[in-house]
Amino acid sequence: MEIIGGADPVPNVSLHTMNELIQATTVRRGATWYLVAEEPFRFASGGQIPRVEVAYETWGTLNAERSNGVLILTGLSPDAHAASSKENPEDGWWEPMIGPGKPIDTDRHFVICVNSLGSCKGSTGPSCTNPDSGDQYRLSFPDLVLQDIASTAQMVLKSLGIEQLRALVGPSMGGMSCLALMKQIPDISRHFLAISTAARAEPFGIAIRSLQREMIVRDPHWQDGAYTIDDWPENGMRLARKLGMISYRSEPEWRKRFGRELQNRYNERLFGMHFSVESYLESAARKFIRNFDPCCYLYLSRAIDMYDISEGYENMEAAFADIRLESARVIGVDTDFLWPPHQQREICQMFSGHGIKCHLEMLPSIHGHDSFLVDYKRFCPAVGSYLDNLG
Amino acid sequence: MEIIGGADPVPNVSLHTMNELIQATTVRRGATWYLVAEEPFRFASGGQIPRVEVAYETWGTLNAERSNGVLILTGLSPDAHAASSKENPEDGWWEPMIGPGKPIDTDRHFVICVNSLGSCKGSTGPSCTNPDSGDQYRLSFPDLVLQDIASTAQMVLKSLGIEQLRALVGPSMGGMSCLALMKQIPDISRHFLAISTAARAEPFGIAIRSLQREMIVRDPHWQDGAYTIDDWPENGMRLARKLGMISYRSEPEWRKRFGRELQNRYNERLFGMHFSVESYLESAARKFIRNFDPCCYLYLSRAIDMYDISEGYENMEAAFADIRLESARVIGVDTDFLWPPHQQREICQMFSGHGIKCHLEMLPSIHGHDSFLVDYKRFCPAVGSYLDNLG
Repeated sequence: MEIIGGADPVPNVSLHTMNELIQATTVRRGATWYLVAEEPFRFASGGQIPRVEVAYETWGTLNAERSNGVLILTGLSPDAHAASSKENPEDGWWEPMIGPGKPIDTDRHFVICVNSLGSCKGSTGPSCTNPDSGDQYRLSFPDLVLQDIASTAQMVLKSLGIEQLRALVGPSMGGMSCLALMKQIPDISRHFLAISTAARAEPFGIAIRSLQREMIVRDPHWQDGAYTIDDWPENGMRLARKLGMISYRSEPEWRKRFGRELQNRYNERLFGMHFSVESYLESAARKFIRNFDPCCYLYLSRAIDMYDISEGYENMEAAFADIRLESARVIGVDTDFLWPPHQQREICQMFSGHGIKCHLEMLPSIHGHDSFLVDYKRFCPAVGSYLDNLG
Repeated sequence: MEIIGGADPVPNVSLHTMNELIQATTVRRGATWYLVAEEPFRFASGGQIPRVEVAYETWGTLNAERSNGVLILTGLSPDAHAASSKENPEDGWWEPMIGPGKPIDTDRHFVICVNSLGSCKGSTGPSCTNPDSGDQYRLSFPDLVLQDIASTAQMVLKSLGIEQLRALVGPSMGGMSCLALMKQIPDISRHFLAISTAARAEPFGIAIRSLQREMIVRDPHWQDGAYTIDDWPENGMRLARKLGMISYRSEPEWRKRFGRELQNRYNERLFGMHFSVESYLESAARKFIRNFDPCCYLYLSRAIDMYDISEGYENMEAAFADIRLESARVIGVDTDFLWPPHQQREICQMFSGHGIKCHLEMLPSIHGHDSFLVDYKRFCPAVGSYLDNLG
């Protein structure tokens, strides 16, 4: 068997997910591995799909004990290409963070980034073809929760022969997916780095995400999910992305960056763009509109809202009780009002309350929720200082 | 001449606005006075309309010296009915704030509230009929800036024979309109109470308002302003109001108020309302959709973005230099991210820098920008303690 990218996926592996035995094989296209199970995959909701693919990329080398794995679960929109590699030299979405000598040091760790189930970026999602019907799933895709994303991450780890990770790394939605994974396998990781995330969705974020979803489904081109390439809910996606940008960034950042500067990039029209901040939002929206599937966006956005680690428990303390970690680090940002500071404090308090060594680091970044993707000056040392000293 | 509501409007008055002499008469319908000028009204933009009406209400009695006037200029959406009266016993939009013995004490002050030019709530705006064409103005209404609203407030004061106010009171957009009025007549008021307002629009608020406007103009029913009662941009107005509510309130308020409580008010539909915070937004939107004219909303929203007291000056200090006040009070709210605390501080610093006694009061309210309409427990004492002690 060829060892590529430092890993050695088992060619045909039996996996337990949702108490179902699944046979899976691993194939590679470019830098991306695909774990493919040609058997029904069952969702937490009870729904199922006839086959599932889980896309992931890896960096570094898995050691003989298979004990140096670091798994990154992502926010809503990124793919598995978190960093460049020989097979795909294009910059990844977390390029300054991952690589030899970088904060997530591929000389030390075998780094895995899994694309979320439900996404349109490699793993099976609503925009994929249902082999039974030959059509895209769209709204026939089963209800998705973050526990399902965690299940597919489990499958990847098992196929790589990793029983326990050195560390889980979860920014934004990915932090929730990490918590879901730890609830499924309490000792799945020795360490956990939570970044600008939360243990449950709260109403302010729910309101913003709910409004983004409504922008899409109220676009006449949405057509109850029957949009086509030529008849796309462009305006819904445009509005949703602009609200996304507003909620991902911050008031002080834009004050310093744009002030009342005028724009000349787009033609002024009545009630149209006048200020630079408006053309900035338009540019960001245009990059997104055709680059993300509307249906996948809705499924993943809703999955965030539905997540509450304490669901089914008397309180949040009880929900954290069974998680086995040696340590955790929680990094948050002062200006993040979408995944706000008190939710970072809460995660840290929960771990500390159960005797898990946990440190909270609130960074004074002005870039809001997106700081972990922008403010590398602050985030690289914060991430590196934790992962370099796991002991 | 009959004195009604404690005032004594000059029946046919010559007014200078924008260096134009206008003849105006005052009529009354219910509790609302209408200053009517059957002559062209010129806008700061150079545009004009053939006639103008300015709606206002008053409470209390104007004293013989006409020196106890307190003028309230409003936020984007309120009408002139700020409080109940004999003529209109319905609660006003600032009911707990205005009346005998209340913080804006009508036993002491002659209180005037002017409905903004451009609104659909009494004063002439885009939804009014253009007498020249017989059709609604809609997009043929001239470009509106807050200086135009200030001009109409000037007209009202002149028609009431008030040369100098005891105090100007401006919450939200109204505070900007007050600043515009003071720039037009630097000694128009002896005192100024600025509430959750700003000396200029900044990019974070601009981004939110710009997106609200885009929601409306991208609704297919907008039809470039040719919507009808039967073909209304309902979804655009719905989305814009929901984003409004998100920006007017706050994360901590909703966390305490809603948590993850479920809703059962509206039928759940795919990607529809699941949580209480979602049905709360829907209820707020439904009250608004048909209750405000889309075109008026666009004009007023844009007028806020365009306001910058320092426009044409070297810096903001220079813009404040000519304003003559005995004192000012600035009240802001910690959790207001739309008209944020640093903008309250800025106004206070500008006045203080020019030797005007100014005190900044930051209230620890959790209701965000809307606190002045909600948190009367904090706002009533704050407003009363200033207006009761003007000296």
